[in-house]
Amino acid sequence: MESINQSHPYVPRDLNLPDFTPGVLSQSTIVGVYGSCSLLVVSLIWIISGRFPKTSKIDRLLMCWWAFTGLTHIILEGYFAFSPQFYTEKTACYLAEVWKEYSKGDSRYAGRDAGVVTVEGITAVLEGPASLFTVYAIANKTSYRYILQIAISLGQLYGTAVYFITSYLEGDNFAASTYYYYLYYVFANSFWVWIPTLIVIRSWKKICAAFETEFKDEKTKTC
Amino acid sequence: MESINQSHPYVPRDLNLPDFTPGVLSQSTIVGVYGSCSLLVVSLIWIISGRFPKTSKIDRLLMCWWAFTGLTHIILEGYFAFSPQFYTEKTACYLAEVWKEYSKGDSRYAGRDAGVVTVEGITAVLEGPASLFTVYAIANKTSYRYILQIAISLGQLYGTAVYFITSYLEGDNFAASTYYYYLYYVFANSFWVWIPTLIVIRSWKKICAAFETEFKDEKTKTC
Repeated sequence: MESINQSHPYVPRDLNLPDFTPGVLSQSTIVGVYGSCSLLVVSLIWIISGRFPKTSKIDRLLMCWWAFTGLTHIILEGYFAFSPQFYTEKTACYLAEVWKEYSKGDSRYAGRDAGVVTVEGITAVLEGPASLFTVYAIANKTSYRYILQIAISLGQLYGTAVYFITSYLEGDNFAASTYYYYLYYVFANSFWVWIPTLIVIRSWKKICAAFETEFKDEKTKTC
Repeated sequence: MESINQSHPYVPRDLNLPDFTPGVLSQSTIVGVYGSCSLLVVSLIWIISGRFPKTSKIDRLLMCWWAFTGLTHIILEGYFAFSPQFYTEKTACYLAEVWKEYSKGDSRYAGRDAGVVTVEGITAVLEGPASLFTVYAIANKTSYRYILQIAISLGQLYGTAVYFITSYLEGDNFAASTYYYYLYYVFANSFWVWIPTLIVIRSWKKICAAFETEFKDEKTKTC
């Protein structure tokens, strides 16, 4: 039993992961591929959105974010949610390597914690496709573009809240080292805290402004 | 150890609850008090809201819902979130009795499951006060009344999703009997699924309508 437990690099050390197979790709390769693909997606959306008439730079930036976060949700988190045995993967499958590496910052991923799987499942299945749809909603200036952005951003914020609070309640001892704790668990996740927060604030103001316009209209008509 | 485990009525039977003290109030008393207090709150809000000018019956009903759900979140769920030892309570404290009884439908409450505590904590601390604030927002026809209702309702839906999915992933075996499973776990929680869903649909439509009005205005101004 002891030999099984020591065959993985995760904390807590007594986490039982039968048939664990160590990752083969380096951290720089994993992060490099993710960074390059993301940069490619963001660049493409930035260029394409520039051809849309009357689309502000903020809306173009938001379209880049929604494409990036949507693909991350669907591909990366979708793979995790539906691959309970990723840590036994013997080939250098990139998606399995991502989660073998990320589990150094939060072993609840390898350990299949119900809270983490639930949040990732909701994120992948609902928020991922909705995020991609938001790119279309912004590009076409639909009447629901702001409320859609608020709905998804609040979902992301609720998800990260559940993610951090359950870890705290369970002892906050799932990182292999302080380095992985701050780089993966804190830093990487922080983007899904401050960006959704800014989007909620902006969209909230836009919606209030629309109602104030409508209210003025009603007053003009009825007075 | 066996004697400790058998001293509580919850499933799974091996759930360890040291110093568990059985509830003293009957099911009908517990449900009766909750029902009567809720009816009182709803009646008061219905009567008071009737004095507000130009407030539709739907808005008055919504004010009743937000007052009821807000107080439920703050008082009942707030007590649970911050009372890890409620099952040891020796006096007939009503709030402890509620959770001793409800745990028959879902023993994760007595067992202090991290996912359940997290969802209840977020609900009590954020959604509870926000729900009460919504009564004011509707009464005063503020420009943010619909977006506020969507934000809280989506939070409630996300919370119930996490609640049901984590249970499913952990084996869905936390009810003392089929009766408690369907009455407490399914039926009681269902109100926080279908009511928030209806509110999200209605508020979403109202927000889209406001943007369509604004869009027409812009066209009138610019054309």
